[in-house]
Amino acid sequence: MQEDQDAVRLRWLNPIGFHTYNQPIAELLESIKQPATEVEVVSLELAASPSHLEYRSYEALMSQGIVASARDADQRGVDAMVIGCFYDPALEDAREISGATTVVAPCQACLGVVAQLANRFSILVGRHKWVEQMQERVRAYGMSDRLASFRSLEMGVDEFQQDHAVTRARILEEAYRAVKQDRAEAIVLGCTLEFGFFQEVQREIGVPVIDAVVAPFKLAEHLAQLKRRFGWTPSRVWSCEPPPEQELQRFGLFQAPPALRGRRF
Amino acid sequence: MQEDQDAVRLRWLNPIGFHTYNQPIAELLESIKQPATEVEVVSLELAASPSHLEYRSYEALMSQGIVASARDADQRGVDAMVIGCFYDPALEDAREISGATTVVAPCQACLGVVAQLANRFSILVGRHKWVEQMQERVRAYGMSDRLASFRSLEMGVDEFQQDHAVTRARILEEAYRAVKQDRAEAIVLGCTLEFGFFQEVQREIGVPVIDAVVAPFKLAEHLAQLKRRFGWTPSRVWSCEPPPEQELQRFGLFQAPPALRGRRF
Amino acid sequence: MQEDQDAVRLRWLNPIGFHTYNQPIAELLESIKQPATEVEVVSLELAASPSHLEYRSYEALMSQGIVASARDADQRGVDAMVIGCFYDPALEDAREISGATTVVAPCQACLGVVAQLANRFSILVGRHKWVEQMQERVRAYGMSDRLASFRSLEMGVDEFQQDHAVTRARILEEAYRAVKQDRAEAIVLGCTLEFGFFQEVQREIGVPVIDAVVAPFKLAEHLAQLKRRFGWTPSRVWSCEPPPEQELQRFGLFQAPPALRGRRF
Amino acid sequence: MQEDQDAVRLRWLNPIGFHTYNQPIAELLESIKQPATEVEVVSLELAASPSHLEYRSYEALMSQGIVASARDADQRGVDAMVIGCFYDPALEDAREISGATTVVAPCQACLGVVAQLANRFSILVGRHKWVEQMQERVRAYGMSDRLASFRSLEMGVDEFQQDHAVTRARILEEAYRAVKQDRAEAIVLGCTLEFGFFQEVQREIGVPVIDAVVAPFKLAEHLAQLKRRFGWTPSRVWSCEPPPEQELQRFGLFQAPPALRGRRF
Amino acid sequence: MQEDQDAVRLRWLNPIGFHTYNQPIAELLESIKQPATEVEVVSLELAASPSHLEYRSYEALMSQGIVASARDADQRGVDAMVIGCFYDPALEDAREISGATTVVAPCQACLGVVAQLANRFSILVGRHKWVEQMQERVRAYGMSDRLASFRSLEMGVDEFQQDHAVTRARILEEAYRAVKQDRAEAIVLGCTLEFGFFQEVQREIGVPVIDAVVAPFKLAEHLAQLKRRFGWTPSRVWSCEPPPEQELQRFGLFQAPPALRGRRF
Amino acid sequence: MQEDQDAVRLRWLNPIGFHTYNQPIAELLESIKQPATEVEVVSLELAASPSHLEYRSYEALMSQGIVASARDADQRGVDAMVIGCFYDPALEDAREISGATTVVAPCQACLGVVAQLANRFSILVGRHKWVEQMQERVRAYGMSDRLASFRSLEMGVDEFQQDHAVTRARILEEAYRAVKQDRAEAIVLGCTLEFGFFQEVQREIGVPVIDAVVAPFKLAEHLAQLKRRFGWTPSRVWSCEPPPEQELQRFGLFQAPPALRGRRF
Repeated sequence: MQEDQDAVRLRWLNPIGFHTYNQPIAELLESIKQPATEVEVVSLELAASPSHLEYRSYEALMSQGIVASARDADQRGVDAMVIGCFYDPALEDAREISGATTVVAPCQACLGVVAQLANRFSILVGRHKWVEQMQERVRAYGMSDRLASFRSLEMGVDEFQQDHAVTRARILEEAYRAVKQDRAEAIVLGCTLEFGFFQEVQREIGVPVIDAVVAPFKLAEHLAQLKRRFGWTPSRVWSCEPPPEQELQRFGLFQAPPALRGRRF
Repeated sequence: MQEDQDAVRLRWLNPIGFHTYNQPIAELLESIKQPATEVEVVSLELAASPSHLEYRSYEALMSQGIVASARDADQRGVDAMVIGCFYDPALEDAREISGATTVVAPCQACLGVVAQLANRFSILVGRHKWVEQMQERVRAYGMSDRLASFRSLEMGVDEFQQDHAVTRARILEEAYRAVKQDRAEAIVLGCTLEFGFFQEVQREIGVPVIDAVVAPFKLAEHLAQLKRRFGWTPSRVWSCEPPPEQELQRFGLFQAPPALRGRRF
Repeated sequence: MQEDQDAVRLRWLNPIGFHTYNQPIAELLESIKQPATEVEVVSLELAASPSHLEYRSYEALMSQGIVASARDADQRGVDAMVIGCFYDPALEDAREISGATTVVAPCQACLGVVAQLANRFSILVGRHKWVEQMQERVRAYGMSDRLASFRSLEMGVDEFQQDHAVTRARILEEAYRAVKQDRAEAIVLGCTLEFGFFQEVQREIGVPVIDAVVAPFKLAEHLAQLKRRFGWTPSRVWSCEPPPEQELQRFGLFQAPPALRGRRF
Repeated sequence: MQEDQDAVRLRWLNPIGFHTYNQPIAELLESIKQPATEVEVVSLELAASPSHLEYRSYEALMSQGIVASARDADQRGVDAMVIGCFYDPALEDAREISGATTVVAPCQACLGVVAQLANRFSILVGRHKWVEQMQERVRAYGMSDRLASFRSLEMGVDEFQQDHAVTRARILEEAYRAVKQDRAEAIVLGCTLEFGFFQEVQREIGVPVIDAVVAPFKLAEHLAQLKRRFGWTPSRVWSCEPPPEQELQRFGLFQAPPALRGRRF
Repeated sequence: MQEDQDAVRLRWLNPIGFHTYNQPIAELLESIKQPATEVEVVSLELAASPSHLEYRSYEALMSQGIVASARDADQRGVDAMVIGCFYDPALEDAREISGATTVVAPCQACLGVVAQLANRFSILVGRHKWVEQMQERVRAYGMSDRLASFRSLEMGVDEFQQDHAVTRARILEEAYRAVKQDRAEAIVLGCTLEFGFFQEVQREIGVPVIDAVVAPFKLAEHLAQLKRRFGWTPSRVWSCEPPPEQELQRFGLFQAPPALRGRRF
Repeated sequence: MQEDQDAVRLRWLNPIGFHTYNQPIAELLESIKQPATEVEVVSLELAASPSHLEYRSYEALMSQGIVASARDADQRGVDAMVIGCFYDPALEDAREISGATTVVAPCQACLGVVAQLANRFSILVGRHKWVEQMQERVRAYGMSDRLASFRSLEMGVDEFQQDHAVTRARILEEAYRAVKQDRAEAIVLGCTLEFGFFQEVQREIGVPVIDAVVAPFKLAEHLAQLKRRFGWTPSRVWSCEPPPEQELQRFGLFQAPPALRGRRF
């Protein structure tokens, strides 16, 4: 039955040891999921953690938790998991060990949507610091010829949800410049914490504005449905080969589930 | 309400003046659509037409009907339309004039799925003739670094649905070689008329096999839902600007709906 | 005898259903052809047609006439045919079915000349709308590393021949900026209807200015001579394979010559 | 008058200090030039010289003579000069100082022809040694995506004109393999001294075979005519800026004409 | 004084929680360092660890220790640190937080040497599994046009130092094939644990064979000397900006030195 | 003994027939070499010569002397030679015939250093004229994605050492703009004659400033040591194959040593 096939299970992982955003993101996802979709929004339980991943060295601290969570997702029957950071941190690593769970990340997901709607796009980042690393991602996803510009809001990750009026004004301003000056035809919000603004900006600016929470979540739901119906699970040959289970046991790796905190709905 | 938002309308266009495949493709799509999704499967009514698009000059004959159908889709409230040929013929042209209708095509859609499941893939084409043109598509979609190989089944488009045992055997043989010799990690079926085989081949070969009807259809359904819920419609600025309505009237272009034949469900 | 070998036959196709420009282009070509060269300047006879191809969806309407004209050129012993639009519309399609006729297009022809005269160049387009599509052409022709800039005259195709003083002033202005600000070393006029201005601009600016009618026409004459003398006709194997004649008959395609209007000299 | 405009003057430079091939190449060029075209075939007068340029270090010895010859060509009113070696040695250097003389080279010229006739091509070189350097040329000319293969005849430059039957047999063999195994759609002869074979091979193999003497010579004639008629001479701004005359005088460079030996017709 | 400037301090990090290879690598480095160079060879102290990094998910477990070690190196006055794995794991992350310490990795270092000695090279990996990830590295380092091939020894990392005769024979065999069949001009050993074989293979095969321990270690020594003499330390602006110290304190990150085990000399 | 292995012999070649800069460069190199390193700084003895290589046609005049000097270096037991011009003139040619001598050039050497210290860099050239040619070098070395900008000092080569205060001020000004406006993270001085300024600029600007004399010289020393210790000499197979000695004798090429003038220390 179709309904059953579409009753998928998704995990949204906030890949940090802070739990502040689990609640608002869960509320957002609950409002946009399909009825039969089950969702859990979790973050990592860590002794110490940054509250954001603006630095590569912070990401490096989180990669262990991300891959552990990907393996855990498979073991708990999660169909697809989203790594909730626009750098797509540890994406390839997590995909290797995720078993039958499809792993999705915001940058790749947003570019996938924008490729269907426009020929050229701009990405609105928080700070110039981020650009070089994200440019590598855009290049790896084969979209650098279509990148009109990066534009920086000059705001840190932790500021986006503090004063909504300020954030909205900054996004509007740079989106407008991207369209007028850089000839962008669509806008991508380059941080998951820029959530909550895209619809208003889109109405104002008149081009598609792709949200970094909505796009990967809905892609995960879509891919999870494809998995259930058509058996489209991650490849496990050649470069996609995971470590052997007996080697994991011998090394004592991934033997306990990772500590996660969050909520399900 | 969510149900309403996901009650999308899709058009599958067989971009030829032959109607033979409307029925089997309609049956396939009916079996895989979500409950609230409405679908029409149509082909072009033409005085003369090829039965397949193996030649560029055949595609050139169809591009008029494809763009007319894209504009018509918008006028009839279709949320997303699929151009049902793996060359993705007239895709950019149709997107320009499709208004609020998202236009999807098989090659781009299949590569989008495979990018989530594997690092390297092979495409199984009918004849070597097709390779150069499809390679341009793969390059334009930014995936040529991930292409393991093209492999040719040495069958024409019209042969795929004639003797299923023969087609299945050929697909199996070349899929097996692609994985073993070319180190493909996933297989893409490079013609919409290779439908009906992917699940069996996938079970046999053990890597994801992406079907050129299923993948674009489900992507269209997904994008149509994104459109309804989030307002993500095609950009209409800069290179995405459509011809002005008054100019179309003055030239007498697209003033009557195109002649289409098909069925709805 | 050499004279005989160079007595080539050329067709300039204005790929629209408007005939306004046949006369002035014919006059221009007559003034620059070699003595033994025979030329016909034709446009398509169509029930409805745009007067320009600024939109992809307009080009899609013309592709049928373009390929039909390419096949017809071969059947009438035309040595080389030019598709007279700087988008090079339906070029690959027309080449497939042109038999022994070499098919030439303005963008590729102009880039071929400029590659012999300068390291970096700019293209003067009518509107920003055109840029993305032409950039794809430049990329496909392997010249994107040498592109200094696109500059827009902010004029529609139909305006170029209306007030020559205005057009000349706009071309001069943007050519000057391209050289000074973008460090272009040569200028390419990015529309066939910018004809009539290059020599004056060239004198004024002091760098080569390549005209989008002259360059492809003289290239066609050159390639036609190569064909006559050395047998260098289009390849017909692999991706260059044309549809089989008996299939064309069975489908009823290209059985009548296309309706063309024009003049010969 | 047109006849006057096409009365161009060309120089074919054999860029070595050996004169053996001046005579046969002059005979070939005389048989293919247009009536009004004047030609000189020259080689360098040098105290010591290799007889071929199979090594980069040999080319380095010749670059002085090549640039001197380019400057000299301009001073003697030559419209276009060909550097007669498929490595296109010192091409960019010669172009800088050639004044109003257009400088042409075989590899770039052959790729220009083949781009009009086929989508993919192979180059037949003498030895594997040559491949890496020529590959750089193909890449610089933007054609590497269209290169089907290099194939080596396993013959030195000096052997090509020794036993014609042997050379023809080797070219035929490798051209055949290029088409069948590498799916080449056209063949380029990757050495000027492979002259004299292309027409027979072309008839036999059935795809265009581009000759490395004919193609650049006829391109030079074509460009010389464009220069005379339309003023399309090399750009002299930015990277195309030549050294100032007074500096040349001060340094005592290029003050005497280079020693060249050859014949005119 | 020069001697002082060249008295550099280096750290070789075996980026795993196994200590087996510290001793033999220390012996090797001791035999090749300059007299005034101080070296420490360390590995990570971890509760659980793989013995090799053949899987991306293993690398993800080590990235925390690698970045912590890079920061620690800076705090202890280490001039340059080598991450001892040919995947160059966490290289960019470690570089961000390494302060004045230059961070070096084997793949980038080996390609740097080979670029000075040959035009094309092959990399000998342990298993095909590794190829895709290393190919991304080669591409990011701008050397993919020069890559002749990857060749797999079909041995795991842990096998390389078990039976030297077997490893040597396998390396010889594949190096020979790389040169003869793939036309490699130099060989890169694609795993640090292939140490101990390069000189013998080099003598036998007759082309440069670059060792994945020697090359990065000597590069680190070279860069450390450049740092001491010329002040060439890592950039710390834009994408190279490290996390602020006060934020690290607030988050409690990197406040204690990482647990490392090893020896100094 | 290590000391012996590091007692390398280096040649710095000023590839012009002017000797003015031998002395100051020798002084600089003497102050930065390792104690056991022997150095010779030489220029070419020529009847006529430019004093700089700002033009391609000047470089073409010097290539003979450069390759002759590379061969001579090998015959005199020089371990590594630097071609002292940032265009890296005749680098590939010289490498072919340099026997066991490693040949190094400034642009490649500087990019090698900068790749270890920063993600993006700018190059400060003398005049815009130089950019296009150097951009080709940057591309060939695989670093164009990391190039932030070229910036022109608007000074000729011969001016750099005339008024140090002026040159320093210009370098500072453009370095500052490169960092602030183009977001460069490191600066490369794009001419060997910009020597003497990097340390002061570096202190002022706060990012690494790579000097075009220091970087290639120290790289040459490093590679010479690698050669002595590990036998890493240039490859001599396939594209690296040199001309046969007996052919050189037969042609009378390179039979006498080139005329060089300079000093040793």
